[in-house]
Amino acid sequence: MLKGIPPLLTPELLKVLAEMGHGDEILVADANFTAASLGRGKPVVALPGVGVQQACAALLALLPLDAAVDRPVAYMKVCDTPNGYRSALQREVITALEAGGHVQPGQCEAIERFAFYDRVKTAYAIVHTGELQPYANFILKKGVLGEVLRA
Amino acid sequence: MLKGIPPLLTPELLKVLAEMGHGDEILVADANFTAASLGRGKPVVALPGVGVQQACAALLALLPLDAAVDRPVAYMKVCDTPNGYRSALQREVITALEAGGHVQPGQCEAIERFAFYDRVKTAYAIVHTGELQPYANFILKKGVLGEVLRA
Repeated sequence: MLKGIPPLLTPELLKVLAEMGHGDEILVADANFTAASLGRGKPVVALPGVGVQQACAALLALLPLDAAVDRPVAYMKVCDTPNGYRSALQREVITALEAGGHVQPGQCEAIERFAFYDRVKTAYAIVHTGELQPYANFILKKGVLGEVLRA
Repeated sequence: MLKGIPPLLTPELLKVLAEMGHGDEILVADANFTAASLGRGKPVVALPGVGVQQACAALLALLPLDAAVDRPVAYMKVCDTPNGYRSALQREVITALEAGGHVQPGQCEAIERFAFYDRVKTAYAIVHTGELQPYANFILKKGVLGEVLRA
């Protein structure tokens, strides 16, 4: 336990978040996700019993999102649904991201399942939660802290 | 870089601080300290170019000190000096600990050099700073966050 650090952030997960630099991505994955296989060679941190909403809140207490891109958050689109469809869980998570000031409306990008897998291959790390809702997979892109000193 | 985390806390050091539990101790050592040999088998995190005062401030931004003991901080007594003697650096660090509310006056314990080495052997980890002042070695004992719910 450390001052100001959400207790869900394990020692390993804290290290991973700190190792990430500008533009690096971390996947918050649900219980069904192919975390070990797609995460081979990456840090894969298990958070059994923890939902994706809780996990995102804990990560974003420390992790700045990337202001240099239009859409710093991506999620896996539910298969065989029309464009714009979001599951109840996806709506909840995105609403919380917006309410927390982490993103503006329109900054969360839906990505089709297999394209999402490809994107995950370049992620720095995976948080494998115990989320039981399927399609509860969110990629967060890390941003920068601090202001450029200008003349 | 992470929100609210002092930039001196490297990924490895963040992990170490989070791994520590109640009563575990971490040594903040000066550049002359026998960190690698006494730290064999422990995490030894190098902070070259960083002073002990800065390092303690960064650690204590996250690390609660132990309220269950009378003296949660110990430092290496300067050899061949009378009891109560403190070097200028030791006075500065202890004054800052008191000013930051981390300890009360009297809660920092002077320990003779070889007894200090024995104590370090049971520490969980060592932060090996670039502090050029000798006898700038401080042991910090981790405390607890949260209140017990009582009937």
